[in-house]
Amino acid sequence: MTEPFETRAQAVRARVDAALDAALPARPEDDPMRLREAMRYAVLGGGKRMRPLVALAACAAAGGREEDGMPAACAIELVHAYSLVHDDLPAMDDDTERRGKPTVHVAFGEGPAILVGDALLTRAFEVLAQGGRSRPRARAAEAVARLARWAGIDGMVGGQALDLALGQDVDDLTTLERVHLLKTGGLYAAAAATGGLMAGADDEAVETLDAWGQAFGVAFQHADDVLDGDQPRLREAARRRVGELVARCRTLAGRFGTDGAELASIAQWVADRMERALAGENLD
Amino acid sequence: MTEPFETRAQAVRARVDAALDAALPARPEDDPMRLREAMRYAVLGGGKRMRPLVALAACAAAGGREEDGMPAACAIELVHAYSLVHDDLPAMDDDTERRGKPTVHVAFGEGPAILVGDALLTRAFEVLAQGGRSRPRARAAEAVARLARWAGIDGMVGGQALDLALGQDVDDLTTLERVHLLKTGGLYAAAAATGGLMAGADDEAVETLDAWGQAFGVAFQHADDVLDGDQPRLREAARRRVGELVARCRTLAGRFGTDGAELASIAQWVADRMERALAGENLD
Repeated sequence: MTEPFETRAQAVRARVDAALDAALPARPEDDPMRLREAMRYAVLGGGKRMRPLVALAACAAAGGREEDGMPAACAIELVHAYSLVHDDLPAMDDDTERRGKPTVHVAFGEGPAILVGDALLTRAFEVLAQGGRSRPRARAAEAVARLARWAGIDGMVGGQALDLALGQDVDDLTTLERVHLLKTGGLYAAAAATGGLMAGADDEAVETLDAWGQAFGVAFQHADDVLDGDQPRLREAARRRVGELVARCRTLAGRFGTDGAELASIAQWVADRMERALAGENLD
Repeated sequence: MTEPFETRAQAVRARVDAALDAALPARPEDDPMRLREAMRYAVLGGGKRMRPLVALAACAAAGGREEDGMPAACAIELVHAYSLVHDDLPAMDDDTERRGKPTVHVAFGEGPAILVGDALLTRAFEVLAQGGRSRPRARAAEAVARLARWAGIDGMVGGQALDLALGQDVDDLTTLERVHLLKTGGLYAAAAATGGLMAGADDEAVETLDAWGQAFGVAFQHADDVLDGDQPRLREAARRRVGELVARCRTLAGRFGTDGAELASIAQWVADRMERALAGENLD
């Protein structure tokens, strides 16, 4: 079943992929460790681009055009890509395959994979800081600070540490949600907040978008757990929470009137997708 | 021999250390992988703090106060610290000791060391982006973009890859200087440029400071090679280049009149220190 949201998302994804291609360094002759090639390998050719879709929907909610939000969309995806490259390393989750391809350290070596992650994270901040050129640059500095906070020790990095430390032994929803918020929700919050900031959103709107992103990210991760069969003991509770969190997202999106429609659609899409899967419908 | 520059530098270092302490997360009860402790371990208690000294001297050259430049000084040192943590990893240089202490991955584990580097790099951009609060925020965004460019694939990360690929087989000064510029000079250029930007420097002044930093960084690394006995075949050529580059630094510093005096002093200190060592004087 092709939904209106999926149809729109497909077109946006193609434009995000083009912008990411342009944001990554070209391959020069002289690249002894093939780092530039590996950066492109890590980012291009795969991924649902959910975080960029959120950044662009938030930019629209705040009255911006797609081109205003694109630097935020690209920056968030680069941060996401760096986190996957480092999380896959032997000293971390030790994964050898991702999206049906060898992980970066398998394809290019472990030293290069560490450097590729570092370079992608660094490039994300460069893209975001440069992005405010056509808009008040002050909002670009605020966007960098917000992304860094959610990506760092009190956000995604802290969440990864918590996840590694807890392992599979999570048996209460509160702890699970804390991991989901830090590891996943924070980057969605950063996507929504920075997307809004690139449109020149005021502080109140930015906080609303940040709250939307936190709720969405946790809902998205719960739905993923349910679809993947993770955390079976918490499944029913997680399913209920998706409903509650998506309702919260709709309320928050409503504050932006009709401009918030795409934020509402994305949240609803997550709930619908999970429910259809549970009803036994075949998803592609 | 206590020089005037060293006396001043000693006092500035203490204030930089206090600012770095405040810029790092405190240790909470709930820190399963001891990442916050490891971040502090990696940054505090050691180091000449040359990059912060340069950032603050550049800030002064552009007419700023020490407090204006401190976010840039801290950000650059956090980037430097992250690069050491990752460079020391087994998959990179595989070093087990630094400044007489076990390296981060030896003391805290390899997974934590990867995350600690990531968190320090991320925190650097947060500190820099927030730093412009009291000044035009637009310059903070420009500072973030400048630091990211010099720290990333076309700067420090690219230099580390080049260095690893070349190994000890460098036998011409041009190639050696290219590694020095990317791996060391870039971060000094970022230190000088961002220090100036935090003082509200205009584009022309920022480019002058950036050029000063490139020349200084390469001179500093050549002097280090000479002092450490590295690259013996290139020793005389490197020594001559230090003199040329320090002269260039003095000329560039002169464009700021008396405000540029500390930039001139730092550069001269590097040349004097090397010459005194070659003359057999005992350096502490």
